Amino acid sequence: MDISEKTIHTIRTLAADMVQKANSGHPGAPMGLAPAGYALYAHAMNHSPAHPEWLNRDRFVLSNGHAGALIYALLHLLGYRLSMDELQSFRQAGSLTPGHPEQGHTPGVDTSTGPLGQGVANAVGFAIAETMLAAKFNRPGFPVIDHYTYAICGDGCMMEGVCAEAVSLAGTLALGKMILLYDDNGISIEGSTDIAMKEDIGLRFQAYGWHVVTLKDGQDDTAILQAINEAKQDARPSLIITPTLIGYGCEQKEGKASAHGEPLGKENVAAMKRRLGMPPDDFYVSDDVYQHLAQAAQAGNQKEAAWQDLLCRYFKTYPDMKDEWNAWFACELPKDLADDEALYDFPKAMATRICSYEMIQRLAARIPNLVGGSADLAPSNKTTINGGGDYSAENRLGRNIHFGVREHAMAAMANGMALHGGLRVFCSTFFVFSDYMKNAMRMSAMMKLPVIYILTHDSIGVGEDGPTHQPVEHLAGLRAMPGLDVFRPADGHETAAAWLSALNRRRPTCLILTRQDLPSYTGSGKAAFRGAYILKDSDGAPDILLMASGSEVAPLMEARELFKISGVDARVISVPCMELFNEQDEAYKHQVMPPHMRARLAMEAGSAMPWYQYTGLDGSVIAMEEFGQSAPAGFLLEKYGFTAGHAVKAGEQVIKKNRG
Amino acid sequence: MDISEKTIHTIRTLAADMVQKANSGHPGAPMGLAPAGYALYAHAMNHSPAHPEWLNRDRFVLSNGHAGALIYALLHLLGYRLSMDELQSFRQAGSLTPGHPEQGHTPGVDTSTGPLGQGVANAVGFAIAETMLAAKFNRPGFPVIDHYTYAICGDGCMMEGVCAEAVSLAGTLALGKMILLYDDNGISIEGSTDIAMKEDIGLRFQAYGWHVVTLKDGQDDTAILQAINEAKQDARPSLIITPTLIGYGCEQKEGKASAHGEPLGKENVAAMKRRLGMPPDDFYVSDDVYQHLAQAAQAGNQKEAAWQDLLCRYFKTYPDMKDEWNAWFACELPKDLADDEALYDFPKAMATRICSYEMIQRLAARIPNLVGGSADLAPSNKTTINGGGDYSAENRLGRNIHFGVREHAMAAMANGMALHGGLRVFCSTFFVFSDYMKNAMRMSAMMKLPVIYILTHDSIGVGEDGPTHQPVEHLAGLRAMPGLDVFRPADGHETAAAWLSALNRRRPTCLILTRQDLPSYTGSGKAAFRGAYILKDSDGAPDILLMASGSEVAPLMEARELFKISGVDARVISVPCMELFNEQDEAYKHQVMPPHMRARLAMEAGSAMPWYQYTGLDGSVIAMEEFGQSAPAGFLLEKYGFTAGHAVKAGEQVIKKNRG
Repeated sequence: MDISEKTIHTIRTLAADMVQKANSGHPGAPMGLAPAGYALYAHAMNHSPAHPEWLNRDRFVLSNGHAGALIYALLHLLGYRLSMDELQSFRQAGSLTPGHPEQGHTPGVDTSTGPLGQGVANAVGFAIAETMLAAKFNRPGFPVIDHYTYAICGDGCMMEGVCAEAVSLAGTLALGKMILLYDDNGISIEGSTDIAMKEDIGLRFQAYGWHVVTLKDGQDDTAILQAINEAKQDARPSLIITPTLIGYGCEQKEGKASAHGEPLGKENVAAMKRRLGMPPDDFYVSDDVYQHLAQAAQAGNQKEAAWQDLLCRYFKTYPDMKDEWNAWFACELPKDLADDEALYDFPKAMATRICSYEMIQRLAARIPNLVGGSADLAPSNKTTINGGGDYSAENRLGRNIHFGVREHAMAAMANGMALHGGLRVFCSTFFVFSDYMKNAMRMSAMMKLPVIYILTHDSIGVGEDGPTHQPVEHLAGLRAMPGLDVFRPADGHETAAAWLSALNRRRPTCLILTRQDLPSYTGSGKAAFRGAYILKDSDGAPDILLMASGSEVAPLMEARELFKISGVDARVISVPCMELFNEQDEAYKHQVMPPHMRARLAMEAGSAMPWYQYTGLDGSVIAMEEFGQSAPAGFLLEKYGFTAGHAVKAGEQVIKKNRG
Repeated sequence: MDISEKTIHTIRTLAADMVQKANSGHPGAPMGLAPAGYALYAHAMNHSPAHPEWLNRDRFVLSNGHAGALIYALLHLLGYRLSMDELQSFRQAGSLTPGHPEQGHTPGVDTSTGPLGQGVANAVGFAIAETMLAAKFNRPGFPVIDHYTYAICGDGCMMEGVCAEAVSLAGTLALGKMILLYDDNGISIEGSTDIAMKEDIGLRFQAYGWHVVTLKDGQDDTAILQAINEAKQDARPSLIITPTLIGYGCEQKEGKASAHGEPLGKENVAAMKRRLGMPPDDFYVSDDVYQHLAQAAQAGNQKEAAWQDLLCRYFKTYPDMKDEWNAWFACELPKDLADDEALYDFPKAMATRICSYEMIQRLAARIPNLVGGSADLAPSNKTTINGGGDYSAENRLGRNIHFGVREHAMAAMANGMALHGGLRVFCSTFFVFSDYMKNAMRMSAMMKLPVIYILTHDSIGVGEDGPTHQPVEHLAGLRAMPGLDVFRPADGHETAAAWLSALNRRRPTCLILTRQDLPSYTGSGKAAFRGAYILKDSDGAPDILLMASGSEVAPLMEARELFKISGVDARVISVPCMELFNEQDEAYKHQVMPPHMRARLAMEAGSAMPWYQYTGLDGSVIAMEEFGQSAPAGFLLEKYGFTAGHAVKAGEQVIKKNRG
């Protein structure tokens, strides 16, 4: 067999061996996809095993992440920092070869992929970022940003709505440098894909405005390469349909669902190696295969070196661009930003979504790589960057992205954009619709991506649109997520702090904002960086701690005054971000909420659950424990008890209980 | 103008008046859709205003629920129990005309619609249910179940992934009695739909295997009717594309995004009425319009009466079917089910997903209308009804539905099936993928639909698949949702109770199940109906309360024995369902968790947040507050502290703290 075939078979046997040794994993997809992986990594893709983080590398997304053994085999063979020991520790604690690819963990992995379909949307995000940065930085003769984005997906991805959302937008935006390979193996876990998907996928992608190539044989690496080259000539995004056999090479499992998610079995692996003409050894790689791919790696490394040279010449020719380049790609904030008091200028009562709008304008003027958009709610979410232009096929410099009514893909694309480097990304929708994109937010958190989620219309304060549009349990759900900051500011000053925190933290942040006006407080600015703080203290030792976030701070401030009349001295604590407060040292936490002080009342127009950590068994929470209804916001806030009067009543009971 | 036109204009002016009076709402879509609404309600649809719950009525879903004024105007004009007062109280507290249609609230509304796209999936669920029930009950000459499912959707629905998922399955399943009207008005909130969606939707639906009719003019009610009749002749599901003008009739707003989500303005409404040749009066309906639609209503009522007659004759001809019919449509459980001890027979250690599988077999044998399936994970979720057959275009009697890798649409379709009546529905996926369908679960809860969600692989116990597949914050997020029971059983006995609870409660239930084996306990059966109970009490007065759910009950049971050695007397409380426990009376709650007894330790391989309500400020929670990793389950459970040893250490500290 020739060296290509031998290499492809080596990928197959490595994948089978990895799963067999781990006694866990998915051998079938890597075996069927080995020719595609080979065509991409050995020939099509510009990448540098010596410098996996090369800015202008082609990006690669394995959207069917369960096929991770494919990418691990390739990265190892090409000389990435992924030893044979790592392949042999597949799916084991501490290895660089986890069950699904993890970005930031394994060198050469461009995104973490878990739940199906999102990887395709990540790839669309990469492709959007490439066009934006190319438009910004490239100059005649200096294509300093000029790369493709490749993705592989399977039947599962094709069935997932998030994938459909993303590829529809990719077609609309004519993202010609996105190339998607569809592993059309006809098998899903429950059996033939026919039982659940009889559609004509090629035709569907044509409807989206994609260029479609359907190969006769997905095992033909030369044909795949030809299709990729053809795709590069087309201005549209390209889909290459590669009909493959799951578990290719293993006679007992080929084309069967049982090849998907369990080891092939020792005897089947041995038989497969005989059938493919490969030696019986576990984890066998012949020297000529290593050498063959070392050449490919060297070619890639040289491309990277040539690009570094191009970049040097670019900076010499366009010296003004160097600082900009560095600022964009280092994602550094302007140095004086943190101390700029003008950012905190919100003297009047305003809806926090409007405060956020003002912040976007103030920040966009100083952070030129801040881009983003909404899932078709920009006029309501207040997210338009004035004068920023609309991003489109015709205007790659536009800073306002029209994601369409596609929340899930929006968030997954934002992840791709943030992963690409060079951009600071926000995205936006109504808070209740965050449900649709929740798992993509989880992926932001897992990858520590500083995506900013602007989530407006944050409670029953939504009013007339009714319970389907009124968030209730959403604050609890997001606050329970590791690695995510959930900021619910009480006024403009806290909104400013929330934005600055979002820009500073290496993790995603949600800005949970009101539709309705909120007062402007004194002392409510930078204190918010500590997550919770005494907004208005009791005059003496407090009789009760009143705590709230966002729109419920106002009734508690009012309650404090009402309490005074009956001689109760209340401390009002604003809690804009529980995650930040929980990170503070004990001394600060005890100062804000003295441990012995058990008369505590929290109020939030959402589920009570997040507050019990502060109110304990002796305090009380005024919260929403049911769905709201369609009526004007003022009526609802009154009806469900988010008033000063109700706070006083509940507070008096808490004080009584703690005295008795 | 003729009576049809006059009626259509009346719908338009009513919608404009409703929004104007409410000073809130969405006038544009109802005005553009008035001809379609008229064609459906006055001519195409079989429905009975006198008996809105008629079992064999055609179902109707307004997937773009913001166009609710359309349906309210129609329901009023056709004589449903929806008075003019209600139209005039649009979006006000306590009215029958909330901002988005709410099933169970407004007579004639078949489903609640909120977030876009789900309505289309609800409709697919209706259509699936119709085929199942028709196959079950119809006999030659007795088409007792024989109706269409109509849906209207807008551009937003078309962009949402959940819609794409559902229509792909509808094509695969050849649901020929589903007819979808697409309000192609070319406008979204941010402007022309072109900015975010340039795809050829007709072609896309052809790719899904749909019959597609594209009308020249969506304002032509006769053409719409013709298209509907044509659609009925086609064995495939049908899409009718109706190009409309948003805000039709209002010169100042027609075709503009500003017609979407705000009142037209008093002067614009007046000008519109002049332009349409309608009187200037608010909420004007002429007598002849009422009379015209009264005729349509009468025809519908007569159809229902004829069907009642058919059903009587059917029961006479097939007397055996009467009990079955009643059992299916009343959704009554077999009377002796609750007392059947055999259901609780789980003597051995087993994964709770396997226990659930056994329950499915035991229950499916006795509840013939129990149907369901998985999002392509049936072999892992263990949800196959043995001998139940596969539901498909060829076998409408199949009880196992292959939803494909489409979690979001699956849940929304399950909602439609449950709404239809006649079926008990479960659906299933890995717990972490519940993220994708979270909002559809919310809609189950809001509509009080007893959909059963079987969510397996419930923690880091997933093991090697890694953090993307390991739920962490999911228990908190779902427990915070109103109206949803979240059951995480500790063994087979509790799994049996969870299933029976799910079948008995008029609300959705999640069954959160393990991949790994769990022990079988004594005393763990029906006690679970109280949500939490003393599984193993201390010998005397307890020194500490140990509480957990699911897989973490085992390490606490072991910890209880370890504690004994150091003279600590621990009570173990199993907490399979917090919602049920929180519903119990104070006396029971205090018996299980005595209020003075503050030394409390909870353990759960998920976020700590839900437990603070029980542990307070003096207790402690062993929980997951970070993402997991890819490694064998045993390693992970040990590493993250879900062991008896760790419980003892943490428990000793809690005891010390409470003594000190």
